[in-house]
Amino acid sequence: MRRGGFLESPVIAYETWGTLVGEGENAIILFTGLSPSAHAASSPDNNAPGWWESMIGPRLPLDTDQFFIICINSLGSCFGSTGPASINPRTGDLYRVSFPVLTLEDVAQGGFEVVKALGLTKVHTTIGCSMGGMTALSFCAMHPDLGGQLLSISSATSAIPFSIAVRSLQREMIVSDPKWEGGNYDLEDPPIVGQRLARKLGMMTYRSPEEWEQRFGRASISTDVMSDEQFFGDFSIESYLVNHAEKFTGQFDANCYLYLSRASDLFDFSEHGGSLVSAFGKLKLERAMVVGVETDVLFPLRQQQDLARGLAAVIDDTELVRLDCIKGHDSFLVDTENFAPVITRFIQS
Amino acid sequence: MRRGGFLESPVIAYETWGTLVGEGENAIILFTGLSPSAHAASSPDNNAPGWWESMIGPRLPLDTDQFFIICINSLGSCFGSTGPASINPRTGDLYRVSFPVLTLEDVAQGGFEVVKALGLTKVHTTIGCSMGGMTALSFCAMHPDLGGQLLSISSATSAIPFSIAVRSLQREMIVSDPKWEGGNYDLEDPPIVGQRLARKLGMMTYRSPEEWEQRFGRASISTDVMSDEQFFGDFSIESYLVNHAEKFTGQFDANCYLYLSRASDLFDFSEHGGSLVSAFGKLKLERAMVVGVETDVLFPLRQQQDLARGLAAVIDDTELVRLDCIKGHDSFLVDTENFAPVITRFIQS
Repeated sequence: MRRGGFLESPVIAYETWGTLVGEGENAIILFTGLSPSAHAASSPDNNAPGWWESMIGPRLPLDTDQFFIICINSLGSCFGSTGPASINPRTGDLYRVSFPVLTLEDVAQGGFEVVKALGLTKVHTTIGCSMGGMTALSFCAMHPDLGGQLLSISSATSAIPFSIAVRSLQREMIVSDPKWEGGNYDLEDPPIVGQRLARKLGMMTYRSPEEWEQRFGRASISTDVMSDEQFFGDFSIESYLVNHAEKFTGQFDANCYLYLSRASDLFDFSEHGGSLVSAFGKLKLERAMVVGVETDVLFPLRQQQDLARGLAAVIDDTELVRLDCIKGHDSFLVDTENFAPVITRFIQS
Repeated sequence: MRRGGFLESPVIAYETWGTLVGEGENAIILFTGLSPSAHAASSPDNNAPGWWESMIGPRLPLDTDQFFIICINSLGSCFGSTGPASINPRTGDLYRVSFPVLTLEDVAQGGFEVVKALGLTKVHTTIGCSMGGMTALSFCAMHPDLGGQLLSISSATSAIPFSIAVRSLQREMIVSDPKWEGGNYDLEDPPIVGQRLARKLGMMTYRSPEEWEQRFGRASISTDVMSDEQFFGDFSIESYLVNHAEKFTGQFDANCYLYLSRASDLFDFSEHGGSLVSAFGKLKLERAMVVGVETDVLFPLRQQQDLARGLAAVIDDTELVRLDCIKGHDSFLVDTENFAPVITRFIQS
């Protein structure tokens, strides 16, 4: 592991769609945000909709008739890859907080192990969304000979202090839940209260105030009908957050969340060589596209501009696309209308 | 109380500076944000600096040589006015969560009781900052015959869903702390963990991402020096939030916070007559100024524009001032350079 420690026989979970051509001429590697699994789209083996269902499939932007798409479950996650919720083969117990410090370079290396195992020597495109964009950057810097193109979506070379503050507070919410118990929580009774708070704060930064204003306004407030609970539930926005938080908190392991959240904060692309200039200098890419969203508060547009400028210094064919989406950081997950044409144009041209 | 229930012999704490002329010709009423006390500035009786120290005093924007300034501690607060942390004279016990539902109209009425007690029949200017701007609006609509002018700073006719979400989550952090105990916490051992989380979330919305980027960048992170704590403390922004949260959480009663926070969410100026048009129609003001800040996410500039438009429909002499401050919602507390000239011009012309 990059910051010390090691893992014995780690596993990296991944899913693929389409058929590999040659040694990777048509391979697309997809690195995810903090929370998704490798199940980016449904398939004959698993017909549950994936997290990028509208983007992956026949005649979709990531066209499975043309491309071989590989989605990587991050090292440190809890959806098949080795992480804090996995058993340490040396002790027979769960790693929990004895898991070594996780960095996104370790996550990128996990992706590279998949690439090797599949026998690829080149890549058509590396894609990363949000945290996955940071992982993709380090993947390309660590393995420049794979070549190909880079598509970075709503990501950055490092987190701004505001985003670090958000994630630090989310972690504090979880470890402040007495049920966290220093990471040794009962798996049947995890720190769900802290996780729910953290998820709600997440939702508040993944979307945008403008979207909520259009969507909710002051809906459901009435002078006559007050909520049963004394301090909650007068407004639609509150039940919206409750519903979203419940969906998530049952699924994600609290310790895995802590590790991946901190890895996002620790990432600094300039560590690849000591400066951003030298980090960008390591890339050997044919083409790059940076996509950002006007209403993103977590990875704001100014970071997309900085990233595109850095890439353009070493890759002639670099393009920055600013999307005027209202749904904030999460737009790439939900605003297919704006994202699909841009991704199609980059991948299929 | 506006939504039912009543208080026996409530107390409203206030402070004054300067000398009253006539029946209120030079009186300035100041309504505060959610957390401040009535101690807006130092005085011979209390030389501790107040929360608006740079604005109130001889030859300052609120010039105590010319004006008689009255700052009101909100009903429901814990700095002298009756609130959930006060003793209910009927039972001899603290009100705690048996305190009736609080609205900003109740807070405004508390201010009016002070005006009456001081024998005022008119007012030179009513000022409200943040939540206090909402209180000031309802004060002016409920007591139009006091006349005078209105200065609204970083406020609105109602909260946007994002701000409701922030405050709802802050309340949830407090009631999720096991030490809250349904509001019956030990006063020597209050739900400080939840209060600290709530305050940190507050700080994240009171300031602006842009300010933090200028101020902190990635300061204090080093690949070699890791924090003692496993998931925290690698970044300056984290210790900044810790320090600010500690300063606040020791002072403010948790139940009072819950009541005032919810009152901010419940406020809807259109309830004064059934629509915003009729609410604005109740005002009998000579002049109004609305001041907003570009980087305010809690009471964004579009709300300042809406408020100014509503006021302009009934008050010919209405002005909107957009300040390009970087310090977000809290700019009025910390950015004297930008605010002092604007307030001086409005008050002293």
